Amino acid sequence: MVYNFNSGPSVLPKEVFAAASQAVLDFNGTGLSILEIGHRTPVFQAVLDEAVTLLKDLMALDSDHEVLFLHGGASTQFFQVPMNLLDEKAKAAYTDTGVFANKALKEAKLFGTVDVVCSSKEANYTYLPKAFSVDPQSSYIHITSNNTIYGTQWQDMSVLYEKGVPLVADMSSDILSRQLDFNRFDLIYAGAQKNIGAAGVNLVVVNKNSLGKVSRVLPTMMDYRHHIEAGSMLNTPPVFAIYVCMLTLRWLKNMGGIAAIEVENNKKAALMYETIDALPLYKGTVVKEDRSRMNACFVIEDKQVEEEFLALCKAEGMVGVKGHRSVGGFRVSMYNAMPYEGVAALADLMKYFANKKG
Amino acid sequence: MVYNFNSGPSVLPKEVFAAASQAVLDFNGTGLSILEIGHRTPVFQAVLDEAVTLLKDLMALDSDHEVLFLHGGASTQFFQVPMNLLDEKAKAAYTDTGVFANKALKEAKLFGTVDVVCSSKEANYTYLPKAFSVDPQSSYIHITSNNTIYGTQWQDMSVLYEKGVPLVADMSSDILSRQLDFNRFDLIYAGAQKNIGAAGVNLVVVNKNSLGKVSRVLPTMMDYRHHIEAGSMLNTPPVFAIYVCMLTLRWLKNMGGIAAIEVENNKKAALMYETIDALPLYKGTVVKEDRSRMNACFVIEDKQVEEEFLALCKAEGMVGVKGHRSVGGFRVSMYNAMPYEGVAALADLMKYFANKKG
Repeated sequence: MVYNFNSGPSVLPKEVFAAASQAVLDFNGTGLSILEIGHRTPVFQAVLDEAVTLLKDLMALDSDHEVLFLHGGASTQFFQVPMNLLDEKAKAAYTDTGVFANKALKEAKLFGTVDVVCSSKEANYTYLPKAFSVDPQSSYIHITSNNTIYGTQWQDMSVLYEKGVPLVADMSSDILSRQLDFNRFDLIYAGAQKNIGAAGVNLVVVNKNSLGKVSRVLPTMMDYRHHIEAGSMLNTPPVFAIYVCMLTLRWLKNMGGIAAIEVENNKKAALMYETIDALPLYKGTVVKEDRSRMNACFVIEDKQVEEEFLALCKAEGMVGVKGHRSVGGFRVSMYNAMPYEGVAALADLMKYFANKKG
Repeated sequence: MVYNFNSGPSVLPKEVFAAASQAVLDFNGTGLSILEIGHRTPVFQAVLDEAVTLLKDLMALDSDHEVLFLHGGASTQFFQVPMNLLDEKAKAAYTDTGVFANKALKEAKLFGTVDVVCSSKEANYTYLPKAFSVDPQSSYIHITSNNTIYGTQWQDMSVLYEKGVPLVADMSSDILSRQLDFNRFDLIYAGAQKNIGAAGVNLVVVNKNSLGKVSRVLPTMMDYRHHIEAGSMLNTPPVFAIYVCMLTLRWLKNMGGIAAIEVENNKKAALMYETIDALPLYKGTVVKEDRSRMNACFVIEDKQVEEEFLALCKAEGMVGVKGHRSVGGFRVSMYNAMPYEGVAALADLMKYFANKKG
């Protein structure tokens, strides 16, 4: 048995793999592979429509919020967001809470004034700063809802709602994992490869009323309004990646939606953090109140013992638990599709190893 | 039996579908799906490396030419190319030979001066203009090597080489289909979904010496130099789409490479055009010398008979032969993976139908 704790691309439901594999051979009895069907055919339009409908439903989006499937990954959003929302003479607030948050704010500087309203860089991003003020004139405040590398997550969004400016969030690593009032966000973006589907497509949820306010002329492919108008078909979309999203969203709906998966995610995270906290061998790297329910990070102080446990994980089929080089140690990613049994198996291995080390 | 004549996404080799389908279930015996493996794992790095090596080999690229697999499709290149190559006060020459060529030149206008050196728009793009001059000061001349919608293709590239300025080509619909001196091009781009693989990834071949000459500051994800430096891994790449490219390139190499596939493509195109020309019912829409070997376009003058033949094609498993709405009639796309038998079967049906109509 292999359990995949990769930080992304990451585990997806087995049902999704089975259906996707079949569609590569014969898509819905068409006699054609999903890889060779035209994107403007009714069969693909039905896939895209279902994916959009599922997302709107799962996220309980109002009619102002549009769902787009775009090329380019979240890193493209780092500049596409300010290109669309930040005018040359305007200002945006950015929270510096990790490598990706930092990349986002650097790109924004190309388009307007960036106000870095808080940073936990000096503490290697092990916590989320909350006591900061935001200029009410800011066009928006940008947050990274979950910092994959460091294992921090904004748990109480009201801290951010209270800042009183439009909210933009990179939700790449925790979207669809917990209930939020998604309509409170002007723009949400997320690479698909954690909780939405496979790598190669990017989700953007945007309040259409926030668009069209900057004075610059945008390249066609960078203007969200054109993508809205074209229904995510401004050019050939990543057909297969969108199909995998649709399958994953269908699975999530069948699981009971976000409310139900959040219960599961809370159970998995509770077990993992209880295990870390109960065993002195393992040291959690993040301030408790900011711990991510998606990525749990911990270290073992003795580097040789760390190597030993890493080797044991590998031998026991626990894939992808090595921490990012900037944190070291271990990172256990527990996205929606990771079953409780996977986390339980890893927790058991952690106990076994800790006891052995006495 | 179904034959897929779609203009793109389009037919791929059966071997590619089989291997891709298997990898979605279990990638190379890892126990993991290709959809859940980390992009920074050695197993995926090997896929990317093989794809790059195969392309360099197939295209016989020199060491100045870098191969990139990027997000965004060719439509993103419409603005990324001038963003990287056309300075604000400089000029680029653009050839207006179809809808996509026209889109490309419109995006370029956002970045510098665009000199539309020729256009066949007045003739609904049914030929390629050749008698035009290019200002030798132009930063580059941009061409669309094959115009998918209209079925025209630059057959004799020397017409363009003679213009004496760097050459940039959108080769989305004929890349890898015929031998060319690819090193004569400063930049080549192509959406994968015709001859390279499945939709969701874009190939860029760029002479690195042409980069770094514009004065504007580029968003990180738009700067080819960063992608070169990061080996197409600046962010999470479209893992599965790149895997499908690698499989397709492997197939092409096993077929004997571009030289061998060109022989096949010439046979298919010859048969199709001979059929069109031999039967008065069908009228080719393109000037003979500019006919594409990838997309053959023809009409039937009586619209009712046209509908009848379209219905017959559908009934007989000839998929995707309907022409683009701006040309009407029929478009037969004969990319690398379309077997000769497919074209022969369609040609037979055309003969049968023409004889029936007397």
